[in-house]
Amino acid sequence: MSMQTYIFELPMEVRDYECDLQGIVNNAVYQNYFEHTRHKFLLSKGIAFSELHQRGVDAVVVKVEISFKRSLQPSDQFISKLSLKKEGVRYVFYQALYSINGQTLHASARIETVILINGKLGFTPELDRLVDEASAL
Amino acid sequence: MSMQTYIFELPMEVRDYECDLQGIVNNAVYQNYFEHTRHKFLLSKGIAFSELHQRGVDAVVVKVEISFKRSLQPSDQFISKLSLKKEGVRYVFYQALYSINGQTLHASARIETVILINGKLGFTPELDRLVDEASAL
Amino acid sequence: MSMQTYIFELPMEVRDYECDLQGIVNNAVYQNYFEHTRHKFLLSKGIAFSELHQRGVDAVVVKVEISFKRSLQPSDQFISKLSLKKEGVRYVFYQALYSINGQTLHASARIETVILINGKLGFTPELDRLVDEASAL
Amino acid sequence: MSMQTYIFELPMEVRDYECDLQGIVNNAVYQNYFEHTRHKFLLSKGIAFSELHQRGVDAVVVKVEISFKRSLQPSDQFISKLSLKKEGVRYVFYQALYSINGQTLHASARIETVILINGKLGFTPELDRLVDEASAL
Repeated sequence: MSMQTYIFELPMEVRDYECDLQGIVNNAVYQNYFEHTRHKFLLSKGIAFSELHQRGVDAVVVKVEISFKRSLQPSDQFISKLSLKKEGVRYVFYQALYSINGQTLHASARIETVILINGKLGFTPELDRLVDEASAL
Repeated sequence: MSMQTYIFELPMEVRDYECDLQGIVNNAVYQNYFEHTRHKFLLSKGIAFSELHQRGVDAVVVKVEISFKRSLQPSDQFISKLSLKKEGVRYVFYQALYSINGQTLHASARIETVILINGKLGFTPELDRLVDEASAL
Repeated sequence: MSMQTYIFELPMEVRDYECDLQGIVNNAVYQNYFEHTRHKFLLSKGIAFSELHQRGVDAVVVKVEISFKRSLQPSDQFISKLSLKKEGVRYVFYQALYSINGQTLHASARIETVILINGKLGFTPELDRLVDEASAL
Repeated sequence: MSMQTYIFELPMEVRDYECDLQGIVNNAVYQNYFEHTRHKFLLSKGIAFSELHQRGVDAVVVKVEISFKRSLQPSDQFISKLSLKKEGVRYVFYQALYSINGQTLHASARIETVILINGKLGFTPELDRLVDEASAL
């Protein structure tokens, strides 16, 4: 994922309650960070995840791969970055958490999602438009 | 708590993963919001909760009272407000979550904490200074 | 709450990810424990919280009071106990977390809930029946 | 992972607060399930994760791959299964969540961990013994 071009960035910071007894951010919380970033990306394009759900359109994660590089610590600030591609029927998000100065990669992820419309595999014109925009960069 | 004078404010927003199957923020998450606000208040005064812990000084919650007034929803933005008093050996935080325009109270809380130093009841000059500052307002 | 008669008990144990950087269970997690106990109590009576929600009936917490007596630690096992009363329109749960041998009280709580039916204050015959059963003990 | 031989099984069930606004278990929570299963496996062998940490020995996750097959729903009961191999310096856990009757795979995961001793890559005789036991099956 070294040459990744990111299309969205979200500044975030660690909250103490996200740290576990090892004194570092618990692994599961990274998925919270990644999900929140995806939803903020969608919101920045006028798409609300909760409204999609109410219309019977659910973006569902089918596969997650996360590499943990350097633990996030209490009070750490970081930048959450995101890119989006379509691979077959899947919308694939490439995501990474970098230190503020961009020098340190804390974690990177590849997250495959599909669209379920009333429970059946589908697609949304809104997301396809975002994929087109992303690939045009 | 109607006439409360708050000494610290933190803008926050709801993250979708904090909502439960009722589609609103889960009750337990409000405690996360309140805790994060207390820790950001301390940080704004140069006090890091995690460093206190490493020095054997632990701020421990002994009592929580929360009134839930109006549910926080997906993507809601709000202001988390805080005041601090000392009552006997207890440091008591008065906290509230308001809508951005200040018109809607989502929740209010009274949170009693004590300081344990290596497991024994104690106090910290740092927190006492904050109490003095707060009462001088 | 000293003379409380409990009508439901649930054995539980601490999971490591529930502990924070102080090495003890985070305060917010106690609300998770209390909520899960309430829902298991309802399930034991044939009432599923998620089905209530799908029928437009939502049990909503309006007030929480928790006293933290003795921190729960990694791997601790405990018994979560519950009682139920109706006070005006409110269904009030009295809850407590005890050590397995019953000697140590970790935390106690008083949790006020109301029933919203399609957003309006209401009641459910199912819950009223549980209140009657509880008061008959 | 089709022919996996599992060496540890833990019965679990979904808690309502683990479900998000889609009404299904949030993706991040699966990592909680997988972590809790690993720690219960270690405990079943007399190894407490929190005690390891206090001795300066930290098991740290470096890579996670999760395939989500069929969403877990409110009140679902399931079996969390685990296997363990050593690959180079890494302790790799193969994990899966199955329905009670064994017919439905909800999710499977491959989780790579390393041992840090006072922050440096290391190994623990305790874990190596578990790997030997596992490979002897």
